[in-house]
Amino acid sequence: MNKGEITRQRIIADAAPIFNQRGFAGCSMQDVMEATGLEKGGIYRHFGSKEELAAEAFKFALGQAVKTRTGDIGHIEGSVEKLRYLINRFVDTPSPMAGGCPLMNTAIDSDDGSTVLRALARQGIQDWRSRLVRIVETGVKQGEIRKKTDPVRIANTIIATLEGALMMSRIESSRKVLQNAQATLIEVLDTIVLRPTDRATRRKAKAVTA
Amino acid sequence: MNKGEITRQRIIADAAPIFNQRGFAGCSMQDVMEATGLEKGGIYRHFGSKEELAAEAFKFALGQAVKTRTGDIGHIEGSVEKLRYLINRFVDTPSPMAGGCPLMNTAIDSDDGSTVLRALARQGIQDWRSRLVRIVETGVKQGEIRKKTDPVRIANTIIATLEGALMMSRIESSRKVLQNAQATLIEVLDTIVLRPTDRATRRKAKAVTA
Repeated sequence: MNKGEITRQRIIADAAPIFNQRGFAGCSMQDVMEATGLEKGGIYRHFGSKEELAAEAFKFALGQAVKTRTGDIGHIEGSVEKLRYLINRFVDTPSPMAGGCPLMNTAIDSDDGSTVLRALARQGIQDWRSRLVRIVETGVKQGEIRKKTDPVRIANTIIATLEGALMMSRIESSRKVLQNAQATLIEVLDTIVLRPTDRATRRKAKAVTA
Repeated sequence: MNKGEITRQRIIADAAPIFNQRGFAGCSMQDVMEATGLEKGGIYRHFGSKEELAAEAFKFALGQAVKTRTGDIGHIEGSVEKLRYLINRFVDTPSPMAGGCPLMNTAIDSDDGSTVLRALARQGIQDWRSRLVRIVETGVKQGEIRKKTDPVRIANTIIATLEGALMMSRIESSRKVLQNAQATLIEVLDTIVLRPTDRATRRKAKAVTA
């Protein structure tokens, strides 16, 4: 990285928590100048507009969040275990970036605002869903998850429940809602697990009701 | 209502959708002046500050949302049916106010901002949870819902999942996530229903595994 690129990256890293906490309209260039210690001209040398800086700041913040939430998933074996790990990781490991989930912040902030940020938030949700869908699909293929499971529905339920719970937990300054969401989602996962005994149990149940 | 009170209410109703769409920082007094057709002095005659107006606008928006989402629940019999009705109503009946859920918007907007708005959002969530908890508790008392059910956990799960799904559905301009959340929540409700046959089934299962 040359000196210009290093400065650019530093501005992004310094601006990211401010945009994440205050939103696009709530974060002024004055705020960015104070956080970076640079003059306005020094910032605009690297970014064409406040929106371009906000977009880079969002990508940086989301990258950090995804890294934290994904953790060591590469070491986890089994699809259901992977899903459990991601749920537990989301609940147990606070975001490294001040201001909460960049995805939710930007989604709420931009749904009536910047179309650039809106597109990035939409992409962030699509990527998250795709990662979960792939895990569920692999689980179905490998006989760990029931065939009738809808991978998209499981993915959407996990994301919606965790994001809604994080919003509530932050406003209430309490981890209670996140823990409740975690307990419910783990139970939802229990319903899609294909257990080796499933066929035997169904046969027995049939015999009883017959 | 005297003339002053009528004007005050009109300012609140006109300002509510703007605050709901743009947030506290993103909504200027210029925006409010344009929406109401009043001069700044005319607005400040009725409100001590922009924050006081934003607080009243939030209460108005939340009141509208609660009314829409509650619908005709008075006519619904049975606790589980009431919960199902509220979930379906949330998913099927769009908010009358532009900008999405005032509760989530204000929660996200104020978690690093106005303490007044933050307190109101927190109260809004507490009230919603209390309404759901009361329904679950009544259901347990009347033998419709299993005794081991945690009313707070059910309430928190419903709110978190619906709010997260609404956020995703709005940013994706698709009802898919809301419908997925609805399907999952209805299944979660199925797990807490106490069926008249439950005891008989348990006895039979015991006889089989013995």
